Amino acid sequence: MAESVLNAAILGASGYTGAETVRIIANHPHLRTAAVTGNALAGRELGEVFPHLATPDPMTITKAEDVDWDTIQVAFSCVPHGTSQDLIETLPAHVRVVDLSADYRLRSASLYEEVYGRPHLNPARTETMVYGLTEHARERLKGASAVACPGCYPTAALLALLPPLKTGVIEQGGLIIDAKSGVSGAGRGLKEGNLFCETAEGLHPYAIGTHRHAPEIEQELSLAVSAEIAVTFTPHLVPMTRGELVTCYVRGEAGAIQAALASAYDGEPFVSVLPFGAPPPDTRHVRGTNNCRISVHAARGPGTAIIIAVIDNLTKGSAGQAVQNLNVMMGWDETLGLSGLSAVFP
Amino acid sequence: MAESVLNAAILGASGYTGAETVRIIANHPHLRTAAVTGNALAGRELGEVFPHLATPDPMTITKAEDVDWDTIQVAFSCVPHGTSQDLIETLPAHVRVVDLSADYRLRSASLYEEVYGRPHLNPARTETMVYGLTEHARERLKGASAVACPGCYPTAALLALLPPLKTGVIEQGGLIIDAKSGVSGAGRGLKEGNLFCETAEGLHPYAIGTHRHAPEIEQELSLAVSAEIAVTFTPHLVPMTRGELVTCYVRGEAGAIQAALASAYDGEPFVSVLPFGAPPPDTRHVRGTNNCRISVHAARGPGTAIIIAVIDNLTKGSAGQAVQNLNVMMGWDETLGLSGLSAVFP
Amino acid sequence: MAESVLNAAILGASGYTGAETVRIIANHPHLRTAAVTGNALAGRELGEVFPHLATPDPMTITKAEDVDWDTIQVAFSCVPHGTSQDLIETLPAHVRVVDLSADYRLRSASLYEEVYGRPHLNPARTETMVYGLTEHARERLKGASAVACPGCYPTAALLALLPPLKTGVIEQGGLIIDAKSGVSGAGRGLKEGNLFCETAEGLHPYAIGTHRHAPEIEQELSLAVSAEIAVTFTPHLVPMTRGELVTCYVRGEAGAIQAALASAYDGEPFVSVLPFGAPPPDTRHVRGTNNCRISVHAARGPGTAIIIAVIDNLTKGSAGQAVQNLNVMMGWDETLGLSGLSAVFP
Amino acid sequence: MAESVLNAAILGASGYTGAETVRIIANHPHLRTAAVTGNALAGRELGEVFPHLATPDPMTITKAEDVDWDTIQVAFSCVPHGTSQDLIETLPAHVRVVDLSADYRLRSASLYEEVYGRPHLNPARTETMVYGLTEHARERLKGASAVACPGCYPTAALLALLPPLKTGVIEQGGLIIDAKSGVSGAGRGLKEGNLFCETAEGLHPYAIGTHRHAPEIEQELSLAVSAEIAVTFTPHLVPMTRGELVTCYVRGEAGAIQAALASAYDGEPFVSVLPFGAPPPDTRHVRGTNNCRISVHAARGPGTAIIIAVIDNLTKGSAGQAVQNLNVMMGWDETLGLSGLSAVFP
Repeated sequence: MAESVLNAAILGASGYTGAETVRIIANHPHLRTAAVTGNALAGRELGEVFPHLATPDPMTITKAEDVDWDTIQVAFSCVPHGTSQDLIETLPAHVRVVDLSADYRLRSASLYEEVYGRPHLNPARTETMVYGLTEHARERLKGASAVACPGCYPTAALLALLPPLKTGVIEQGGLIIDAKSGVSGAGRGLKEGNLFCETAEGLHPYAIGTHRHAPEIEQELSLAVSAEIAVTFTPHLVPMTRGELVTCYVRGEAGAIQAALASAYDGEPFVSVLPFGAPPPDTRHVRGTNNCRISVHAARGPGTAIIIAVIDNLTKGSAGQAVQNLNVMMGWDETLGLSGLSAVFP
Repeated sequence: MAESVLNAAILGASGYTGAETVRIIANHPHLRTAAVTGNALAGRELGEVFPHLATPDPMTITKAEDVDWDTIQVAFSCVPHGTSQDLIETLPAHVRVVDLSADYRLRSASLYEEVYGRPHLNPARTETMVYGLTEHARERLKGASAVACPGCYPTAALLALLPPLKTGVIEQGGLIIDAKSGVSGAGRGLKEGNLFCETAEGLHPYAIGTHRHAPEIEQELSLAVSAEIAVTFTPHLVPMTRGELVTCYVRGEAGAIQAALASAYDGEPFVSVLPFGAPPPDTRHVRGTNNCRISVHAARGPGTAIIIAVIDNLTKGSAGQAVQNLNVMMGWDETLGLSGLSAVFP
Repeated sequence: MAESVLNAAILGASGYTGAETVRIIANHPHLRTAAVTGNALAGRELGEVFPHLATPDPMTITKAEDVDWDTIQVAFSCVPHGTSQDLIETLPAHVRVVDLSADYRLRSASLYEEVYGRPHLNPARTETMVYGLTEHARERLKGASAVACPGCYPTAALLALLPPLKTGVIEQGGLIIDAKSGVSGAGRGLKEGNLFCETAEGLHPYAIGTHRHAPEIEQELSLAVSAEIAVTFTPHLVPMTRGELVTCYVRGEAGAIQAALASAYDGEPFVSVLPFGAPPPDTRHVRGTNNCRISVHAARGPGTAIIIAVIDNLTKGSAGQAVQNLNVMMGWDETLGLSGLSAVFP
Repeated sequence: MAESVLNAAILGASGYTGAETVRIIANHPHLRTAAVTGNALAGRELGEVFPHLATPDPMTITKAEDVDWDTIQVAFSCVPHGTSQDLIETLPAHVRVVDLSADYRLRSASLYEEVYGRPHLNPARTETMVYGLTEHARERLKGASAVACPGCYPTAALLALLPPLKTGVIEQGGLIIDAKSGVSGAGRGLKEGNLFCETAEGLHPYAIGTHRHAPEIEQELSLAVSAEIAVTFTPHLVPMTRGELVTCYVRGEAGAIQAALASAYDGEPFVSVLPFGAPPPDTRHVRGTNNCRISVHAARGPGTAIIIAVIDNLTKGSAGQAVQNLNVMMGWDETLGLSGLSAVFP
């Protein structure tokens, strides 16, 4: 193996974000999936569990404790929160950590405990871990040894709200985020609410006022402007597998907001701000990619504007941004492994 | 035929709202579908065009001009706006009119012209036609000879917003309606945006700030409180056939709003206000029925509350409410033909 | 309660066939849902578990053992096979039994044990229970005290194959049934294969050569012609909730087959044989109804014909046929509770 | 531009196969999309018509007649049959032709006329054009200047049937192909049958006995064994966008068939034959890729076996195979532009 290729361990490769990470790494010139873990499925081949990932050279899922960490340089943690810190806190120091779970996103261990219902194993670490919303975290990411990747809803919402908030073209109060997600955002767990018959041909909101991504969004918005920002956040489950769309209602002038966004993301490889007046974006147009598309619209209600942002929740909202973050951490071209992900439409 | 059975003509029976009207009438003890029209498909049998409506005794689609109006007592107009007034204005006086199109919803002919792009044939009539949001229009409906049935989005939005607005428990400003609809709301017309491949597995907003249902909602809200109300209304197209959900962001206290709604709809056969704290409603639970389910939630953002309402856009949002309106006009039990519509779930 | 109304207990009302039975009974003039059981959910209200079934007068789910059988005249058993016989064998003699499970479908207890993996509690009973494919079982159903309702695939396949087989217009050998079902056929159980993300936007066959409905189909075909009939049966899982379509490849002349079917089902309220040359049926056209639609087509391959049959797997394929069977058992009009089920299309 | 990069014109880039061709070429090291045509949309930008294909450097759609053919080395024809030959027959000789339409698939001009309803412009050419089922056409493809790419159904069916037929492990008579396709197979044309509401939540067969792909399949099977082969071919429309699955019923021994297929495709980059006893393949596992997955199963019916094959109809069934064919024609690595297409699952 060339020196320039890092061996990656994917912790939790039997879930959707784990599988998406393996998919992306397969086309990354400096990464190689060297270990895949999943306790319940240990001993089975990855290509059996996820036939779309089958390769001529099969890879066996192992227990996390059976990974030979001496041969691994980077760990992508795709296990659920809680489990993730339990694993990450045991990794040898030479292993770079890309955490896709929620475990190190909240910078306050007490808020973590309140939101996730258990004490944090390493409060000091969660308080200092880089929050990897890549476009807004590059300076801190460079050379970092660990990153907490944002949740899918926060990724879309923060990409839409941070630039206008930081430039002051929207008010800090009254922020409303009406969010819609495909079912894959809920993972591969066996819950009645994820069954086809419970999610197809219909729509419903859930976790109104209580979704764990709201405090995460508030944390980052508040930090950005050094003020306490509260958001009204209402997620809805949409009968589609991938895709996430946030409709943000803000107080400000649409033209100024569009300009703030266009300026903030000028030249960005993965974030496109649509021209004023263009049709709003569609989740279909980013399916399978690391892209985010944003549009701004004037509302009928006076003084109100609407910001729309779409991402693929499993890619930019999870595994894609994770690889993007590692690229920055390693000083590589930020688009490695990601620029070739073509949107599969129709 | 018993004297108590009215002969109905369904104008535009080759579209989805026409078909839904036929479906509902089939179980109505005092109505009989006696004529079905559709110019492009005249001469074909309805059961060929819509096999789910096939009956042992086939019915032939005719041109509207070939209906023998002497034998008809009520016309359901399910043709597009514009065409609808062209037909309705030619009907003999003895025919009761239930208009499912947008043609007589706006009480100002000049607003109609602005929104729908053509002068109204009968300004006086549109200004006086009963706006048939049944639960809020019973007094005017009784004995009326014509009714303009609300649009699908206005039906859900107004049922959710009128009681708290009228009782003053929400502010009149800053109303936001984030709406989501299944594809059948767009009808059976051949538009690229209605193709399966353009609507499945994804989500997008449309007509932001320009949708024709916004002025309709504003008209009714404004009339209700004798003040000029503006709404921010953002519709989204969801990959499902039937179903509509509005997420309304309002300024007020959730408990008081829930109480206002529960009180307003106490005893209503088709509108249920869920207890505070219950899970929000789901479009699946009203599929194929004339029901509306409403819930109220406190938002994280201070002073903001969320009202959710779900309907089936083709039933309560169109053909079901049309029949409900006729029931009131005729002095019949309001639930005739509708109480037997069972929600098809899963 | 009028003497003419029977009290029904729905065993397993927390599953999809249980819910469908409750839905149908709600419109049946001689039936009333008097008890609903479900061990895991005992104590909860049915309208909470299935909000589409909520009624002003709530009904509490109980454990099966807590039903007061003195007040019950008929039991619909909607629990899984195995559990069903465990319950049914304990019921008092005055309770009529309509079994929607697979427990009494196979007339040989040893075949049952082979296929379902456990000995049958009451071999004598399974050997004599009426197999309720209604259109072909009326004589035995009249006055019967118990009925085994066919599986969903056998219902569609047997309705299509029995008439041409019995009249000899198709060969007994080489029968192929390529079957396609919506996901609700798999029930509400928590299996990975029923998750939205595993079933949407794709298609796969399953249980090739091993599906338990194959011996059931073979049993009934063999009995009908007193010969041993083997079928090749391949089910596929289709990304839709309701609906089942069988494509049967047979050796015979299409015209004669169509005639045999048209003659067999002439005047049937729920089975329609389409005219030769008409477009094939569509599952959408029977959604939510007790209807079966059948068409016959000549194949390109010489000597081969194709029979298509569609049903709603939860209605004619389960709860609808169950009620139809009870109607015959009781000597009632066979369409009670079923004729008003209108197909919800689109 | 490097000498090794060919300029490609995509004729009909406003359709789904055109868009898919552009998507694939974007990652091909030796191809560059230099012109995109579409008469109705000429003058618009491709990234406006297909936002998922938007690039920093926008590309304008032109009329086919406005392409500067001096700068083009290869034409991918993605227009409908009929139109395709009209264009192809006018191209200068130096342009290599990859035809994705049906125009040169049938080797008999009179059969073409019978099936497609118009005389062929160039009978001699259709009789000699290479039929590009890549895995079975490499010798003829090398150095060829034009190729007719197979239809989507024939691609899956022939990959499944050719090896066992040629090795004689299945009988030549009684071949049955029960096929299922996603809606994108029908293209982007405005037909009622392609509307979301007509294709979601349901299933139906179509064109039974008359589908144009049946003669194409028969032609290739017949040529392979120098005998007249007839097939029974029944396509079904499935509520999914991409994916195609054929269930082939053949007379032969499953083990021998699996061996014939495994041997024929040993080492193939895009065709996988699953081990005997493995779960059957799923269209989800090849979504967006050029892969075909095949499994073989014994049937209950004696002497019958079942072969399952899945492809993505837009990729291996169309644009992917088109690029694969060009790769062989040019003597390039056959996997260029295709090996990086990762299956997007879930």
